[in-house]
Amino acid sequence: MESQSSSSSQTTWFTYFVAFLRKCIFMVLSRGPIPSHIAFIMDGNRRFSKKNKLMEGAGHRVGFSALMSMLRYCYEFRVKYVTIFAFSIDNFNRRPEEVQSVMDLMLEKIEGLTKQESLVNQYGVKVRFVGNLQLLSRPVRLAAERAMVATADNSKAVLTICVAYTSTDEILHSVQESCEEKKEELSALEATGSGPYGLLGPNSNDKEHKECFINSKDIEKHMYVTPDPDIIVRTSGETRLSNFLLWQSSSTLLYSPLVLWPEIQFWHLVWAVIDFQRNYLYLMGKLKQQ
Amino acid sequence: MESQSSSSSQTTWFTYFVAFLRKCIFMVLSRGPIPSHIAFIMDGNRRFSKKNKLMEGAGHRVGFSALMSMLRYCYEFRVKYVTIFAFSIDNFNRRPEEVQSVMDLMLEKIEGLTKQESLVNQYGVKVRFVGNLQLLSRPVRLAAERAMVATADNSKAVLTICVAYTSTDEILHSVQESCEEKKEELSALEATGSGPYGLLGPNSNDKEHKECFINSKDIEKHMYVTPDPDIIVRTSGETRLSNFLLWQSSSTLLYSPLVLWPEIQFWHLVWAVIDFQRNYLYLMGKLKQQ
Repeated sequence: MESQSSSSSQTTWFTYFVAFLRKCIFMVLSRGPIPSHIAFIMDGNRRFSKKNKLMEGAGHRVGFSALMSMLRYCYEFRVKYVTIFAFSIDNFNRRPEEVQSVMDLMLEKIEGLTKQESLVNQYGVKVRFVGNLQLLSRPVRLAAERAMVATADNSKAVLTICVAYTSTDEILHSVQESCEEKKEELSALEATGSGPYGLLGPNSNDKEHKECFINSKDIEKHMYVTPDPDIIVRTSGETRLSNFLLWQSSSTLLYSPLVLWPEIQFWHLVWAVIDFQRNYLYLMGKLKQQ
Repeated sequence: MESQSSSSSQTTWFTYFVAFLRKCIFMVLSRGPIPSHIAFIMDGNRRFSKKNKLMEGAGHRVGFSALMSMLRYCYEFRVKYVTIFAFSIDNFNRRPEEVQSVMDLMLEKIEGLTKQESLVNQYGVKVRFVGNLQLLSRPVRLAAERAMVATADNSKAVLTICVAYTSTDEILHSVQESCEEKKEELSALEATGSGPYGLLGPNSNDKEHKECFINSKDIEKHMYVTPDPDIIVRTSGETRLSNFLLWQSSSTLLYSPLVLWPEIQFWHLVWAVIDFQRNYLYLMGKLKQQ
């Protein structure tokens, strides 16, 4: 009994010690610029299952724990925006049982997010689900909506969860929203007898007029994910974006550690931040040169 | 005299030997899938000048030679599409003398492209200049137009040169072109009494109708750069896209060798292709699993 209690006390001390070390590292890194937005492509859950001969779906569960750790590190580090690619529209083409198993896990975990003691409430995180949410099953969609309502007043950080998402779908949605918004402007013009011109302006060959109607600022305004991420972390050593935040990745660092997602560690995040700081200084130098 | 001629003959033999070796390597690699489109972000010309204490602009000249070598390797390797990021819209914000110096170099090199003995004619390459060409000075724009006309009948390969280009500008241009195209459709609908609805369909809350009007296929159709690149090579170890081919990079491998652009070598291309082949096999496996 005594040995059990001593071992548990050792574990507690070790946990505190690790947390203290982490804090020290964060303090050192905080001397430099801190990324305000980190996005994650959690690649390798299925390969982790295979590699460790686990049951199907077990990789996703271990992956979820890895995500919780990574979120904790990000929030301890005062990263305000974290965005994760939870489920692509293309993933609906996988085997129905696999899609169902991921959806079940998602439902269970979304419900966990709203609990009082959850990480989300601990760090004051507003949760946003973005994507073509109509493609989700009704229970998952409703749970997502409940989680958004429950965390709407949190304001210290923002966790954006991309589900039933692809970047091209997001851009298209944004274009459509911009058109929608401009429609009223157009109607007003028509009413005053200056139209109708469509959404392209009075003279479609006139570039300037075209740009008065739909421009890149309009499109940006309607994007699901904002601001642009500073870093995208994609595990498994993959150096592609797989239709994730394409519009927003213009100046984003892509960091691709070789580990599978469930194996991601604190050190990978530290390395990504160091890489960001190195590049930040270089970019600042470049801006000064201009 | 004799020693000079013997040294020149040795150099010739060495060049043949290297070309032969290159052919062997290409033959081995050609057993696997060959990328059909490689894009290059030629980063590091200015740093190369500084590093080697060269005059301003000299880095860009050495960079141009590196580009010619890289194009030759790509065409020997039967890569059909090569796209290069020659000048970003953002680059116009650099010092006027620097912009002028790059434009002068561009004018000189574009004129060289159309010569009978040029690489472009040697490999039957159609040259395309894409971007907001109105932003170029008149002589450069006219030279670009002449080069496009002169190589229009070449069909073995396509070299797309992005000048006065950013990807967000390309997407916006494409949205505008799509709107333009749909305007006629819209007018026809209005004429038959089914409209006017704007570019969003009869009911703006109706997703299905919205997608009848502007959809992602329309946007893709009007993109400057097509097909999607298999690999983007960005030198200087930078892992960001800097507003280059964002829409098209959904499944693109980003390969970032640490060298500056003028230092890029044949081996970097070989390594990029090996990386592509490794990933290609993995992606095929993934598709089969679905």
